[in-house]
Amino acid sequence: MTLLLSNDEVEALLPMPECLAAMEEAYRELGDDRGGNGVRSEILTPTDRPDALYSLLTMAGVVPKFGIGAVRINSDLLTWPQSDAGLRRVKVPAAPNGRYVGLVLLFDTKTGEPLAIYPDGVVQRMRVGATCGIAAKYLARAEASDVALLGSGWQAGGQLMAICAMRTIKRIRCFSPNARRRKEFCAEMEVKLGVPVIPAETAQAAMTDADIVMCATNSMQPVLNADWIEPGMHVSTLKRLEIDAQVAAAANVVVTHVRGAPSVIVRSAGADLARDTEHQKAALSNALKTSERPELAELLLGRAAGRKSEKDVTLFLNYTGMGYQFAATGHVIYRNAKKRGIGRTIDTDLLTSALPS
Amino acid sequence: MTLLLSNDEVEALLPMPECLAAMEEAYRELGDDRGGNGVRSEILTPTDRPDALYSLLTMAGVVPKFGIGAVRINSDLLTWPQSDAGLRRVKVPAAPNGRYVGLVLLFDTKTGEPLAIYPDGVVQRMRVGATCGIAAKYLARAEASDVALLGSGWQAGGQLMAICAMRTIKRIRCFSPNARRRKEFCAEMEVKLGVPVIPAETAQAAMTDADIVMCATNSMQPVLNADWIEPGMHVSTLKRLEIDAQVAAAANVVVTHVRGAPSVIVRSAGADLARDTEHQKAALSNALKTSERPELAELLLGRAAGRKSEKDVTLFLNYTGMGYQFAATGHVIYRNAKKRGIGRTIDTDLLTSALPS
Repeated sequence: MTLLLSNDEVEALLPMPECLAAMEEAYRELGDDRGGNGVRSEILTPTDRPDALYSLLTMAGVVPKFGIGAVRINSDLLTWPQSDAGLRRVKVPAAPNGRYVGLVLLFDTKTGEPLAIYPDGVVQRMRVGATCGIAAKYLARAEASDVALLGSGWQAGGQLMAICAMRTIKRIRCFSPNARRRKEFCAEMEVKLGVPVIPAETAQAAMTDADIVMCATNSMQPVLNADWIEPGMHVSTLKRLEIDAQVAAAANVVVTHVRGAPSVIVRSAGADLARDTEHQKAALSNALKTSERPELAELLLGRAAGRKSEKDVTLFLNYTGMGYQFAATGHVIYRNAKKRGIGRTIDTDLLTSALPS
Repeated sequence: MTLLLSNDEVEALLPMPECLAAMEEAYRELGDDRGGNGVRSEILTPTDRPDALYSLLTMAGVVPKFGIGAVRINSDLLTWPQSDAGLRRVKVPAAPNGRYVGLVLLFDTKTGEPLAIYPDGVVQRMRVGATCGIAAKYLARAEASDVALLGSGWQAGGQLMAICAMRTIKRIRCFSPNARRRKEFCAEMEVKLGVPVIPAETAQAAMTDADIVMCATNSMQPVLNADWIEPGMHVSTLKRLEIDAQVAAAANVVVTHVRGAPSVIVRSAGADLARDTEHQKAALSNALKTSERPELAELLLGRAAGRKSEKDVTLFLNYTGMGYQFAATGHVIYRNAKKRGIGRTIDTDLLTSALPS
């Protein structure tokens, strides 16, 4: 039987501590070349809407130790509206009932069979949050307790869940451009985490005296100024263009998520929206020297150095999502679903075939 | 509602003539850069079986004109047994009930929503067959009526279905190393196609006086000798290593399926089985100059020349499957399924999400 799980079920099946443990183990496996991460492939085509492109994104990974392979698929209408805070990349929930389309399919490496299918909404932020959490475990000061968060969207919540599992956090300040949204977000996260989460008027105000600065915006221009960085801080960023090269220059230690994960974008004729941002991202990657930085797995395995003193500034560049992360989280989700008997089932024969192919 | 279709249903929904028409239209779109084909990504990892690797293969494509995006996923145990006829690549049906795991997921480019999910078994040979059929339409002699088929497996059947839709075929001779299997195959195809299908004792015997030679084996060594090629023949091949550079040298016109479709194979540590074959394939591609040959779409659009005389030998190299082909065939399957009300349904809300990702 193949399981069909909802986002709510995935949330219940993937507690952050288990997510962090599985992800860290998976990164160690990857660092020792015992994991497989495929190419990230995105196809962009024009749509009837002049302001939107259709995007079909696939990524896959296998964690042999867990016996799990995963494919993640996103089928989205993308827009790039200009806001007061600059250009943002925004998905349109155009599927029936105003919904988004992101799917994870899990496979058993022993038999090949499809084990589970679920939406990627919850797991998406859990894996991104966990990646930054693991980096902070190895890079942030041991007694770090004060967090600045830039952004108040879906990903921002995952960042807080992860950092609260890794350090004893006493205060969180959050800035995002929309005052009402950041206030709602702070109230919601304070209840969820049991830690004071305070709205800040500016990014600089959120960062003053903070130990850890987590950027989790969908901005396509820098959201923090290198001048605001204080000695001893640990900074992490999710989106290219969210920080600039001055921030990297201000850091004593810079670790990138993964150096070698290939990503290929194919655009058909007329799919030109936001094409400039690809060049900007490539230029920023060059400026940040991401291809020369040590990567997360090397840090975990002791093959790359972390901070050398309490004064060091550390920076983690969490760019380039990997299909591999969905196999690591999928392992936890599937194991717990089976243990607790959660999820609908589909007859696996409907998803397999007597025919070779 | 998202449709769940079986192989039998897909077979009924994708008649070869409709498949050929949609594929040809899709290739024209691709040739004019109005289609999108993603990167083919394969991850290979070791298994508990010393003779098998786990393979997680993904490919995707979008045909904007049809409003369809497709992702094809294969999750397989692969072996490379040595037979009398040489090394062969063989999938193990290791999923419950001795089944294979290959899936196609279709998406709507207007809304992003998942439209259908079905196994890839039937469509896999239809799209490969159709590709060779379209090539033969443009490359084989108009009065070609005599076909030699090398191979008697699943793909071999698709080749015959396609060629019989493209030319008035009067005789088919088939060679494959297993005498019993080729006899059964011939009997089955004769009934299906209404054309004499005759077992041949050798590849050479099958080819003598043939107009069209279709290679559809899973051999990893050459199955035909360039000396057996006669003036005016059209030859097609599906697998790298199935023909050698002498065959290409004997041809006046060589067309490759697609030049630019990138394919990346990632092997984790210990996943070394059949690694040599990758080097052999790369060497053969160099020898065949596949990166310099005109491609199918250019032939269809009149940008590359076909045969110049009745004596010309033409060769079609149908290497490198594309996710794009699954979007083209998916268009026909989905359109017919909706028209005829065929297939089970899954609530689309179970495969979509209120959360962005």
